[in-house]
Amino acid sequence: MFAKLCRPVPSINFRTVKCFCKPRQLNKYYNIIARANCSASSSFLCDKNVIFVAGLGDIGLDTSKELLKRDLKNLVILDRIDKPELVCELKELNPKTKVTFMPYDVTVPIAESKKLLKKIFDKLKCVDILINGAGILDDHKIEATIAVNYTGLVNTTTAIMDFWDIRKGGPGGILCNIGSVTGFNAITQVPVYSGSKAAVVNFTRSLAKLAHITGVTAYTVNPGITRTSLVAKFNSWLDVEPDVAELLLEHPTQSTKECAASFVKAIEKNKNGGLWFLDQGTLENIKWRKYWDPCI
Amino acid sequence: MFAKLCRPVPSINFRTVKCFCKPRQLNKYYNIIARANCSASSSFLCDKNVIFVAGLGDIGLDTSKELLKRDLKNLVILDRIDKPELVCELKELNPKTKVTFMPYDVTVPIAESKKLLKKIFDKLKCVDILINGAGILDDHKIEATIAVNYTGLVNTTTAIMDFWDIRKGGPGGILCNIGSVTGFNAITQVPVYSGSKAAVVNFTRSLAKLAHITGVTAYTVNPGITRTSLVAKFNSWLDVEPDVAELLLEHPTQSTKECAASFVKAIEKNKNGGLWFLDQGTLENIKWRKYWDPCI
Repeated sequence: MFAKLCRPVPSINFRTVKCFCKPRQLNKYYNIIARANCSASSSFLCDKNVIFVAGLGDIGLDTSKELLKRDLKNLVILDRIDKPELVCELKELNPKTKVTFMPYDVTVPIAESKKLLKKIFDKLKCVDILINGAGILDDHKIEATIAVNYTGLVNTTTAIMDFWDIRKGGPGGILCNIGSVTGFNAITQVPVYSGSKAAVVNFTRSLAKLAHITGVTAYTVNPGITRTSLVAKFNSWLDVEPDVAELLLEHPTQSTKECAASFVKAIEKNKNGGLWFLDQGTLENIKWRKYWDPCI
Repeated sequence: MFAKLCRPVPSINFRTVKCFCKPRQLNKYYNIIARANCSASSSFLCDKNVIFVAGLGDIGLDTSKELLKRDLKNLVILDRIDKPELVCELKELNPKTKVTFMPYDVTVPIAESKKLLKKIFDKLKCVDILINGAGILDDHKIEATIAVNYTGLVNTTTAIMDFWDIRKGGPGGILCNIGSVTGFNAITQVPVYSGSKAAVVNFTRSLAKLAHITGVTAYTVNPGITRTSLVAKFNSWLDVEPDVAELLLEHPTQSTKECAASFVKAIEKNKNGGLWFLDQGTLENIKWRKYWDPCI
């Protein structure tokens, strides 16, 4: 019955479809009760179940902390390396939110990603938001850069569609992909990395436009130069500029805390197709230029 | 002596560096003689050595034919599958140009690409232009799409830098990467493909800006919807639009011949940083919007 009611209807608004879905209706009901205990300022994220890929990274960790101020129901952190002390720290921040860590390398085959997600969905029943934040910055490592920054993000996204896609009876969902300003205009000294981030930006813009079909909305958060360990020292392509990190850091930057604050503000705005530019502590929704139109 | 003279000098114009290089000087001298036999209209490509990755593809084959009208010295076609009858056809088109075919799959490790290029450089002594044209369009195949369209292109480009980079004593070179209009604005139904092409566009724009360091200039040719076998039938991501090919072809398109004519015009313009939009038989250099500036 659930699956039948959720079958796609051309151009149907997925929010309407959701209302037909019994499990979602119940969930909505419970959410209303739970949200009564949330502060008004953090109502959007309150009681949400969030998966955060790379939620222990430099920007990731501060963003996880910021998220925990919003009384999530569950924060499931997937990261390549377990850092138990950091997970403990996060667990202690807000007793209202259950923080879980599970190891995940985004470069595994998509079947592995689906298995892991199944475990999470079986446990939580629903997931509201997936944050895809795995990224490396090292233009000596061509394959790894592309595999993590683009292929891994696409695979994780594709994997969660098994559970979210309204055409499969899913309830829809919200996808937050971490791009980078280098996806708009490159740091030319790291062309491989910048290109991979351009791919993320372009890919996510498409997904937003497919939301009426899949029920999944999508946006990117694109940090400007942020003082992370990633940026402190990294390799340029063919060593075209050995001092690229130092040169970048001579110009205005932002702290990971500033970035995290903007990050969570962007999530709260929940704008399908948002192209968020997070720079020097500010947040701006970029309007992408239309160079051509496929007309379909 | 050669290597010493070609060591990098900050911000040096690589064309000046080239003039110090003895082998290049000789080559230039021979070129002047050879070009005297070329028609004025095709003087830029006349007597050039060109490597064309995917030169037997749909757009590739017609572009190879168009190139052969320009009296190249050598056209080395690298493609995954040998098509002897097509190679024979190309060989017969212009006796002034030596056409060679060598099998090449862009997804091989970079060491393999370097080995193949070494064979070519050993034989031809110099290569003037590399055209990177390998591409697949099938959003059911996530890994293959990204591996061919982006990683393969980056690896082939990185491999040829061993022979071209002026910092290694090379003579510089010209890189022509085939992007796509979907790299500017996606065909949303194929987000994986479109993202991979956005990566190519962004990557190549960086390379153009690094030309003063590497001696290698770069530009992209970005075909609009072209009536190829690739476009006749292809899979959308998660089948979001099973009729995507038919829908696209309902709108104005161009033939592979029209595309090839614009393609070779773009090569002849030889504009470092060119972002060529090849649509409906026209050719336009797109100006990319500046969303931010890394200031380095």
